[in-house]
Amino acid sequence: MVKLVALYRKPENAADFDRQYFDTHVPLALKMPGLVKCEVARVVGAPAGESPAHMIAELYFNDMAALTAAMGSPEGKAAAKNLMGFAAKYVTMFFAEVRPT
Amino acid sequence: MVKLVALYRKPENAADFDRQYFDTHVPLALKMPGLVKCEVARVVGAPAGESPAHMIAELYFNDMAALTAAMGSPEGKAAAKNLMGFAAKYVTMFFAEVRPT
Repeated sequence: MVKLVALYRKPENAADFDRQYFDTHVPLALKMPGLVKCEVARVVGAPAGESPAHMIAELYFNDMAALTAAMGSPEGKAAAKNLMGFAAKYVTMFFAEVRPT
Repeated sequence: MVKLVALYRKPENAADFDRQYFDTHVPLALKMPGLVKCEVARVVGAPAGESPAHMIAELYFNDMAALTAAMGSPEGKAAAKNLMGFAAKYVTMFFAEVRPT
């Protein structure tokens, strides 16, 4: 299993960000073909006290081929375009391969 | 559900880091009381090409009280002490609350 991880740093206007994120972006992302599971979590603190992070989202796919195909699909492109419209300066993305523990 | 997220940036010596991480640190972390689930994933790339990240680990607990108790437990302190011994300069940690999607 692989995942696309999107890490968001705290936006200037969290209420506005959250509205665009949950009302529009997440529904678009959930349409990506081959998506096995999606987990969104809100950052609530850190061992050191405050965290610069605001949100973390993880989209799971069976393998990198499925993830790449999803990102290149019309649904993936629509989700990415929407994201860049309101969160380009807050988001960092990477791909990760889940390991057995 | 809440999770402790540990994000590691690429170490100077990945083979040495991985050995200490998988052979010693993960087994210690898995002993934390109240741990519901642990997911470790290796970063394999990014939409932009390279990612500065190396690994992401997520430890799930039922609520923040359980997470806090686990970090304050002897097992939690042992895991943290071990981590600081080889990964202090690579790790960033935060707490996040999983949202329904």
